[in-house]
Amino acid sequence: MDRRVLSLNQYTVKPWSLEAAVAACVARDVPSIAVWRDKLAELGTARTAHLLRASGVRASSVCRGGFFPHPSPGERARRIDDTRRAIDEAAALGAPTLVLVCGPPAGQPFADARAQVAEGIAACAADAQRAGVRLGIEPLHPMMVTERSIIATLGEANDLAASIGSPAVGVVVDVYHVFWDVRVLDEIARAGERIAGFHLSDWRTPNGGDVTAQRAMIGDGCIELGTLARAVAAAGYRDDIEIEILNEAAWAGDLDRWLDTAVARYAAIA
Amino acid sequence: MDRRVLSLNQYTVKPWSLEAAVAACVARDVPSIAVWRDKLAELGTARTAHLLRASGVRASSVCRGGFFPHPSPGERARRIDDTRRAIDEAAALGAPTLVLVCGPPAGQPFADARAQVAEGIAACAADAQRAGVRLGIEPLHPMMVTERSIIATLGEANDLAASIGSPAVGVVVDVYHVFWDVRVLDEIARAGERIAGFHLSDWRTPNGGDVTAQRAMIGDGCIELGTLARAVAAAGYRDDIEIEILNEAAWAGDLDRWLDTAVARYAAIA
Repeated sequence: MDRRVLSLNQYTVKPWSLEAAVAACVARDVPSIAVWRDKLAELGTARTAHLLRASGVRASSVCRGGFFPHPSPGERARRIDDTRRAIDEAAALGAPTLVLVCGPPAGQPFADARAQVAEGIAACAADAQRAGVRLGIEPLHPMMVTERSIIATLGEANDLAASIGSPAVGVVVDVYHVFWDVRVLDEIARAGERIAGFHLSDWRTPNGGDVTAQRAMIGDGCIELGTLARAVAAAGYRDDIEIEILNEAAWAGDLDRWLDTAVARYAAIA
Repeated sequence: MDRRVLSLNQYTVKPWSLEAAVAACVARDVPSIAVWRDKLAELGTARTAHLLRASGVRASSVCRGGFFPHPSPGERARRIDDTRRAIDEAAALGAPTLVLVCGPPAGQPFADARAQVAEGIAACAADAQRAGVRLGIEPLHPMMVTERSIIATLGEANDLAASIGSPAVGVVVDVYHVFWDVRVLDEIARAGERIAGFHLSDWRTPNGGDVTAQRAMIGDGCIELGTLARAVAAAGYRDDIEIEILNEAAWAGDLDRWLDTAVARYAAIA
């Protein structure tokens, strides 16, 4: 695959600082990085923007806003405000996309949680449009419904984006979350220009530990990566493609080697 | 919920023999049992049929046929033959349903595996109809795609059953596998008379061990059991409702107490 649109999602090398992750991109001719907000907060937005400019590394996305559902209206408002701050941070870094992890039901009926997600995104859409940032609704694997996201299929994300109807609301296609779905190719085609991100890793069934951090190295699992990449390209997506391999075992090991392998496997996807 | 349609899926008490499981049903006024084929093979079909008649306990289903996808045509034929034997066993027990666990891709492209599932079910449909047994396509949680089933949503199971178009091909609604799906209520309504089984347990995210055997006790998780039960009833389903809680920790503990709790929790679903 095309190295010119390769981005390192920095949680692939989560233990590293933003400076170290950017340096690793420069060292490997990786032209883009996806920035997580905890790392951004450590360095500060202004210094991060300066670091990226000075390094010639662009920001593909900021991760993340969202976590909208909550029983308390005050807490829901706080989370919408937090997502608005994340929009400003993405704009400051020149990142075209703010990834939305929509949040679990938080003990509420699922229908209520879904309505709160829709309300939360709608409340932020105009801010995103003004800032020139797209909100990317990322459906997460149905396994993570109580950890991370009541939005669990690309079809649901497409429906949600369509119902909000703002050009600033798109969807993110992460292969780990959607590969299993018989409808995934149809929903990628349907998403079309709405696709605001494409993330790569691989699937091996989690077996102990944190269910959100057991993604496999590209090529070590069962995901039909080439098929999905061709579908996303056919849908018109031309922007950065993120390597995003959250893996707690890898984080405890040799991350330079992990990243070298990921970059080589990315190049080999056909 | 109605005790008159309560069935014990015997893997809820997997370490027990069929005789012990049937005795546990009699002791608790549970009128029905779902029989697994490994247990059936231990006792033999004729003796099992006699045991059920003598005990006054009916069979709600036999579990399971399927596992259709395989790269070898000979092996695929063998699995179809095995499913035909399972149909005969279900008929011998008077079980109205043979549950189909359709099988993982077995290293093949997902589209090929899905086609092999469709071919396998179609090959068995006439046998099932002659035997008076319904094949229940059970979509399994997307988490289990590499362990158990390429068929991962109720929508996909409904499409598959509709495309085969036999009155002997239905779908099984197991709450553990489908609860997360924004479309689940619509697909239950769409399934209508096609519903050939309804299974209860609860969801807590697996965290180590066998991903297929970490279902939670009814009421200990996040599944909207009452909502799903009402939807299945509204779709016209009036047959047995199985308690099917595969849990490896419970299997190592006090199964009488586990079963007592399950029966009490079943009764309390509202």
